[in-house]
Amino acid sequence: MATQGRVLVYGGKGALGSTCVSHFKSKNFWVGSIDRISNDDAHLNMIVSGSTLQEQDEEISKKLADSLQGEKLDAIFCVAGGWAGGNAKSKEFLKSADDMWKQSVWSSVIASNLATKHLKEGGVLTLPGAAPATDGTPGMIGYGMAKAAVHQLTKSLAGKNSGLPANAVAFATLPITLDTPNNRKWMSTADQTTWTPMDFISEMFYKWCQGDERPANGSLVKMVTKDGKTDLVLL
Amino acid sequence: MATQGRVLVYGGKGALGSTCVSHFKSKNFWVGSIDRISNDDAHLNMIVSGSTLQEQDEEISKKLADSLQGEKLDAIFCVAGGWAGGNAKSKEFLKSADDMWKQSVWSSVIASNLATKHLKEGGVLTLPGAAPATDGTPGMIGYGMAKAAVHQLTKSLAGKNSGLPANAVAFATLPITLDTPNNRKWMSTADQTTWTPMDFISEMFYKWCQGDERPANGSLVKMVTKDGKTDLVLL
Repeated sequence: MATQGRVLVYGGKGALGSTCVSHFKSKNFWVGSIDRISNDDAHLNMIVSGSTLQEQDEEISKKLADSLQGEKLDAIFCVAGGWAGGNAKSKEFLKSADDMWKQSVWSSVIASNLATKHLKEGGVLTLPGAAPATDGTPGMIGYGMAKAAVHQLTKSLAGKNSGLPANAVAFATLPITLDTPNNRKWMSTADQTTWTPMDFISEMFYKWCQGDERPANGSLVKMVTKDGKTDLVLL
Repeated sequence: MATQGRVLVYGGKGALGSTCVSHFKSKNFWVGSIDRISNDDAHLNMIVSGSTLQEQDEEISKKLADSLQGEKLDAIFCVAGGWAGGNAKSKEFLKSADDMWKQSVWSSVIASNLATKHLKEGGVLTLPGAAPATDGTPGMIGYGMAKAAVHQLTKSLAGKNSGLPANAVAFATLPITLDTPNNRKWMSTADQTTWTPMDFISEMFYKWCQGDERPANGSLVKMVTKDGKTDLVLL
């Protein structure tokens, strides 16, 4: 059976990433996963182990180019990135700023560079933003800085001569809280009807991939969930 | 003669930093300089040589604490940071993203952390922003990301419980083009009447330090120069 297309999920073994890998596989897409751990559902796994941005890029780029053999990707979904709290006085401030940069920005920078090489014309790139970082985040400063950089990167990629293929689009996804197993575990008493379901996002990605319901290029796509229903607010 | 106060200039050997060191010294301030090279005009030099954020912080923090012996700073002016062009496809994209982060964000993170320890109540912290990074910067993507992170850091520091001392304020300075010897050398045919003079900035810093003409806490202070006259636009 011929593949319907090819997508890459950066962070493909995380909660949201795994959901995306499964969803696109069920739609008969070839799916590549980039993560620190292999996702057995993916057709190709690129394992990230390097300790510098350049090392990580090299290990991913080579394996992807070898596998694609010139075939183009319909989309790259970067859903990598962690969370860390802490204000400017906290003992772990420097470490958290460093960690957040590596987790959210290195992955976004590599995904953007891969998009310039392997995304097809009119393809889709999504990057991992965060709704709180559109303003100050005094209680999680390192996290906010990294996400603000991702938001601005998204605007840059949508600009003229950004290096993306013709008619390709870049979006940042700005969830407030995702409905993940870990969040259910650690925030069990929170109002979970305001959490965004992961399959809402994977289906949104699928629609974008098909050319349906795409926001304006460069949009920061804030996802506001209320009573289990999610609306998009475009920034 | 008693000192009028104490300030720290991060990037104190650069063009703007040197101007600030001289200006505050002429006003009878104690001036500390942080840079890769010593500024002989400064009362204390902290030389940055480490290759990680933590190493750089340690070499600066220890020397500063030893010298201040509990005395507080009136202001910390971070004017460090370089420039690099390149879109997402450029060969040097990853390197430029890395370099810009280290130059603008590491310095800002360390300056912010120093401010939580050594700035006096009601003191001033300035961070090095950039006007173009308030929107996308497709031709200088690494630069834009780093500056966007600095802008968001400024908003975070102005928020509640950011870790800054009571009533301290944080601003980002967003020049468009500075009137520096290097810019005169490399852009000799540009319209230099739109370039912001460095002594405008050092005098603005002095006023803020004295409590005069301070913008709202967390302001991004865009400097728009026309016919040699500079106006501030607060974002």
